[in-house]
Amino acid sequence: MTTQPTFELYAYWRTSATYRVRVALNLKGLTANERIVNIDAGEQREEKFLKINPLGAIPALVELGHAPLTQSLAILEFLDEFQPAPPLLPQDLHGRARVRSIAAMLAADTHPLITGRVKKYLTATTGMDDTAWRAWQIQWFGTGLAALEQRLAAEPQTGVFCHGDTPTMADICLASIVEMVRIFKITIPDTPTIDRIMAACDAHPAFAAATPSRQAGAPA
Amino acid sequence: MTTQPTFELYAYWRTSATYRVRVALNLKGLTANERIVNIDAGEQREEKFLKINPLGAIPALVELGHAPLTQSLAILEFLDEFQPAPPLLPQDLHGRARVRSIAAMLAADTHPLITGRVKKYLTATTGMDDTAWRAWQIQWFGTGLAALEQRLAAEPQTGVFCHGDTPTMADICLASIVEMVRIFKITIPDTPTIDRIMAACDAHPAFAAATPSRQAGAPA
Repeated sequence: MTTQPTFELYAYWRTSATYRVRVALNLKGLTANERIVNIDAGEQREEKFLKINPLGAIPALVELGHAPLTQSLAILEFLDEFQPAPPLLPQDLHGRARVRSIAAMLAADTHPLITGRVKKYLTATTGMDDTAWRAWQIQWFGTGLAALEQRLAAEPQTGVFCHGDTPTMADICLASIVEMVRIFKITIPDTPTIDRIMAACDAHPAFAAATPSRQAGAPA
Repeated sequence: MTTQPTFELYAYWRTSATYRVRVALNLKGLTANERIVNIDAGEQREEKFLKINPLGAIPALVELGHAPLTQSLAILEFLDEFQPAPPLLPQDLHGRARVRSIAAMLAADTHPLITGRVKKYLTATTGMDDTAWRAWQIQWFGTGLAALEQRLAAEPQTGVFCHGDTPTMADICLASIVEMVRIFKITIPDTPTIDRIMAACDAHPAFAAATPSRQAGAPA
């Protein structure tokens, strides 16, 4: 191993986007010192953290001597360029586009809809109650995962993982959403291909070590 | 010029994500035959289009002989790898991460909240009316653009464009959001740095040619 630069990761045990970065660090054999931002206590909206990310969202990854990196998709791409092996993207142009498309279906078109800031706004403005919020979660988790299931079941590039037989950014984003579905105990339609791939993720040490319930700050 | 492969772009005149792909094609000097998917008539949810993208969202870019590529961020990365010049990302690792982070703040953390499918759901389930939907648009456009304004004003890499003096994915995503703000006539807080960068985009032929009001199908 070469000398490893110091990373700091602004993180919280249960967030989907933080989980993605943890898995990528694990896959690359990199480590980061975590700085906990308790989003259940609103710490992401405190002045101290807004200097790290004005959007008030975690994760943020800091490489010593550099500005904070934000947005999980951008951080995954950064880590893949920072340390290319093992790769988080396939080598071929169309394969790379497929993996990035799956990652974006989940991290861009599904996850932002069910974040805490959206819940806060809907509760305050429409009086949305817990039952209606749960229906909202089911709607968007269900829509995203059902569309992905169709793709994974139909497309020939699907293997043990979403794209071939090694984990990519697609699996990282998929597992990040499935972990949320588990935490919130959301019932979604049958997704046999996703379930099979998620079992492969669960069995992979880099994913297992990132499981939200095993992180510092998680409830016992 | 080498012989250009045939691209087809499933598109609609006013969508933010389609706009991003049009600008990228223009910057690269590539062309695509457009196939209009009238999302105001719900064509994105018809069986015919769901075979292209099960999520029922445009754009989709088809390179002759290949499977459709979906998700605008993935398509931008594809086009940048397909034809590297002029680049849509800077050369250095941290610069690339910054540009991708800005792109994701807008395309992943802002835009998905104000799409038609979200409006449809909120109208149907909470009875959200036009005034409340407008407040919702202001909330999320405003949050995303205010956070970006802070970054652009503070970070030294900001130049004529979001990152230096040539357009990148960050500008493509920024302009795609500002074009929505214009179409929906949304009033947002002052964003002088964004306004300055948007003026540079407006003056750039690749952006100007992609303006929604100039596309086929736009109202006269």
